[in-house]
Amino acid sequence: MMAEHTVKAFDAEITSLRGLIAEMGGLAEMAINESIQALAKGSLSMAEAVIARDARLDKLEAEVDRLAIRIIALRAPVADDLREVIAALKIAGILERIGDYAKNIAKRVSRIEERTRFEPLTLIPAMAEMAADMVHDVMTAYAARDAALAVEVIERDAKVDAFYDSIFRNMVSFMVENPSTITSAAHLLFVARNIERIGDHATNVAEQVYFAATAEYLADRTERPMN
Amino acid sequence: MMAEHTVKAFDAEITSLRGLIAEMGGLAEMAINESIQALAKGSLSMAEAVIARDARLDKLEAEVDRLAIRIIALRAPVADDLREVIAALKIAGILERIGDYAKNIAKRVSRIEERTRFEPLTLIPAMAEMAADMVHDVMTAYAARDAALAVEVIERDAKVDAFYDSIFRNMVSFMVENPSTITSAAHLLFVARNIERIGDHATNVAEQVYFAATAEYLADRTERPMN
Repeated sequence: MMAEHTVKAFDAEITSLRGLIAEMGGLAEMAINESIQALAKGSLSMAEAVIARDARLDKLEAEVDRLAIRIIALRAPVADDLREVIAALKIAGILERIGDYAKNIAKRVSRIEERTRFEPLTLIPAMAEMAADMVHDVMTAYAARDAALAVEVIERDAKVDAFYDSIFRNMVSFMVENPSTITSAAHLLFVARNIERIGDHATNVAEQVYFAATAEYLADRTERPMN
Repeated sequence: MMAEHTVKAFDAEITSLRGLIAEMGGLAEMAINESIQALAKGSLSMAEAVIARDARLDKLEAEVDRLAIRIIALRAPVADDLREVIAALKIAGILERIGDYAKNIAKRVSRIEERTRFEPLTLIPAMAEMAADMVHDVMTAYAARDAALAVEVIERDAKVDAFYDSIFRNMVSFMVENPSTITSAAHLLFVARNIERIGDHATNVAEQVYFAATAEYLADRTERPMN
């Protein structure tokens, strides 16, 4: 049993930890939205901004790790409190990787030529919006410890996967008919794949939220699509 | 300070934890090697075996999580011991994802047609061997708490990235010249990308090994290539 002053210190530390995770979630969502805007507009300056801002996510992850280790070492939390700290450690790692996927999208903006020719440039923003919404809503589920919302986010991942499969087939047909655009098309294929992976990672965050809220593991992991 | 019987119980639990991580590392390395063999030989049965065996990695990750949480809750480890447990939690998550990349390669085996036409089918196994060696050696670094070997593994990632860039350019030229093979070529491009990501993830494991061994973070993260 913790003494009262220890409980207060612990509550303050957990609040800081949750604040750092919320900040990471906000930055990850912004990185997705802005990398896709940069892609849609062909804006290199916007792409550069996304790339530059990613360092902040890396720093925040290291801060979460340090604070989580400090909390465990000083407060020796158990049960719900311990699961909360462990979930924060894992979620920070996943959000940092979502940032990496957005940064990778931003890096490809300068590689896409003859932009107006690509029909997927209208499909990709719609797919990205779905993935960004998953990230947004899973962070709401995290803030509210809402296991039901976490499950709902996981269920949405199948739609992102289906969208991706359709973009993959569309891109391949386009490449067959327009061999001169293959380099740009290959970069767009990877953009779509990155968005699909962001959906998977939002699902992984949702699994951690579920675990922190219920002490149970969601048995089945979502399958990744093949393309 | 822990009582003597607690120290013994703690040592036994840490040994179990390290055993689970070693098993995960072995399975991940095997999954890479066998998915690439399946690809090189066009063996669907071998690919199926890799896909089926991936569930074991998922189970082991959950076991590591449970044991790590149990150790923290019951033993309240601090300093080196706590870093060791935290590193195990993070490494288990990374090895599980390496398994996912290998599984994704295995899933693509059935999608590659006219296999003999692809020059990258000779380059990809060489690239995969580099990545599998990184996974192998980072697990050796983990077992030996060898920070210098961890750094050496990280330095090797640049070679995998360079290999990937060269395969990307090679594949794009091939697609331009042979539009009829574009679907297969796109799958091979993703195979190469998966291997590149496995190299990144071996680097992430190495960062955790370094942290567990030295209590310091490696300041700079490796950059992902653009293609």
